[in-house]
Amino acid sequence: MITVLAGGVGAARLLRALCLVVDPGELTAVINVGDDLVLHGLTICPDVDTVTYTLAGLNDEARGWGLTGETWRVMDELEALGGEAWFRLGDRDLATHLYRTQRLAEGATKTEATAEIARARGVASTLLPASDDPVATTLETLEGPMAFQEYFVRRRHDVTVTAVRVTGLAAARTSPAALAAIAGAERVVVAPSNPLLSIDPILALAGVREALGERGDVVAVSPIVGGAALKGPADRLMSDLGLEPSAAGVADHYGGLVATWVIDELDAALAGRIGGAGHEVRVTTTVMDDPARARALAEAVLA
Amino acid sequence: MITVLAGGVGAARLLRALCLVVDPGELTAVINVGDDLVLHGLTICPDVDTVTYTLAGLNDEARGWGLTGETWRVMDELEALGGEAWFRLGDRDLATHLYRTQRLAEGATKTEATAEIARARGVASTLLPASDDPVATTLETLEGPMAFQEYFVRRRHDVTVTAVRVTGLAAARTSPAALAAIAGAERVVVAPSNPLLSIDPILALAGVREALGERGDVVAVSPIVGGAALKGPADRLMSDLGLEPSAAGVADHYGGLVATWVIDELDAALAGRIGGAGHEVRVTTTVMDDPARARALAEAVLA
Repeated sequence: MITVLAGGVGAARLLRALCLVVDPGELTAVINVGDDLVLHGLTICPDVDTVTYTLAGLNDEARGWGLTGETWRVMDELEALGGEAWFRLGDRDLATHLYRTQRLAEGATKTEATAEIARARGVASTLLPASDDPVATTLETLEGPMAFQEYFVRRRHDVTVTAVRVTGLAAARTSPAALAAIAGAERVVVAPSNPLLSIDPILALAGVREALGERGDVVAVSPIVGGAALKGPADRLMSDLGLEPSAAGVADHYGGLVATWVIDELDAALAGRIGGAGHEVRVTTTVMDDPARARALAEAVLA
Repeated sequence: MITVLAGGVGAARLLRALCLVVDPGELTAVINVGDDLVLHGLTICPDVDTVTYTLAGLNDEARGWGLTGETWRVMDELEALGGEAWFRLGDRDLATHLYRTQRLAEGATKTEATAEIARARGVASTLLPASDDPVATTLETLEGPMAFQEYFVRRRHDVTVTAVRVTGLAAARTSPAALAAIAGAERVVVAPSNPLLSIDPILALAGVREALGERGDVVAVSPIVGGAALKGPADRLMSDLGLEPSAAGVADHYGGLVATWVIDELDAALAGRIGGAGHEVRVTTTVMDDPARARALAEAVLA
């Protein structure tokens, strides 16, 4: 069994890559819920859905998010009504949110709803929201506080962030299944997701750092390649917050929580520095832009 | 100013007919909310929406409900996910429910959301939900208690009803705008809607019967023609509950609340009996199946 701490697109790609070299049924993803939101009355879990859609082979590669064959009838009509249409929910995607919201109203947990949706989509891996309770990543910015999706989607993360906070932690219970999956896995992997926005909100949940620390054998894939994030604002955000936007900066940020770093060939020059800080370092291709490279990364992660 | 107590399709057609003979801006509809429901997290107001869509000229005449040019992408996908898809929400229609639910979450009232949607749809008349608070019509049936839409849509009203109840009345405040529209109108009309399912839940709200009673000049259009409801289960339901399914039976049911009855030519033989019970009776065409007949009914109502 392999457990992956996961955000959205980068994690979904790593999970898909791992499915090339291990039975998908052997994979468990512990997925960030700090970017979840309630909009139009619907509970939306963007990272969980990105992982689900990608592992189901239903993600739109060209657009980079959402479902293939998507249409926008509801959003177009909502826009015509003068409604809030900045968070684009496709028609197929909306079915996911209607399903989840109805199941939550009936008393199901996010974990249960996620499992039902994954099963209906033909996903064989186990997808676990890191918590069933509301946990919200929020941003302090030079333009004031912002909810996560307001920053990420509405403002396209084009604003200077001064702090990242995770609210709801005191009342949130970490998913017991997620803690068990971390403790019981043969290998635990931190996906190349945004450290501050996707992984830290998982690490902030009670017991997660402890469960990882007890293992001492965590492998992580750097989300920063050649000083830039492949997708999203990780590089700028790290700079904004005084961290070095590099594979070494990410390694410093996680510190002793990660034993082994998988970094890109582009960053081979950083291997000595990361190794000097006490980590094992594996240098390989980390950009999963074709199946051969994806498989090579998966093999390096599981080596 | 003319105020119409309204359910769904029959009321929407009467309101559209009245728009042929008076300025639509002079019309106010006080609309049943007993059939409202929350499904998939969305607040849905079927009667309010039917009136809105019909007055906007956007109703699908052939299907008999919902919007013209409708598509079913979300529902088809929801069905594929194994979700609850028996209450068919079209893609265009969903935009209405997303808009309303978001506005309610922001603190707007149903009245405000309804007005905003009506304005966006180009409806010039005033549409007032009878209450901003949750009021739910429920059915006691031979197969146990049922929520309204479970009975009406899911079971297609093919079940024997033993009682109709309206829940939530104690905590519900009647729309002040609706009460003012009843008290201040030149004419108050009870639409040819289901007396038990659409009009009674309005009459059950505090102050409505009193406001109508103080006028003593209420005009009603019979929803039963030749012993049958033009649409829906009014005839069967009246029989189930021991009422005579006829224009006279409806007149008996409302009693002194209605001064003037407009009944169909098919029911001319009942005019004497209804008149004998103290009502003024106007006999005309009440089946609004073409604009000329719709106009004739509107003129009889406003005579």
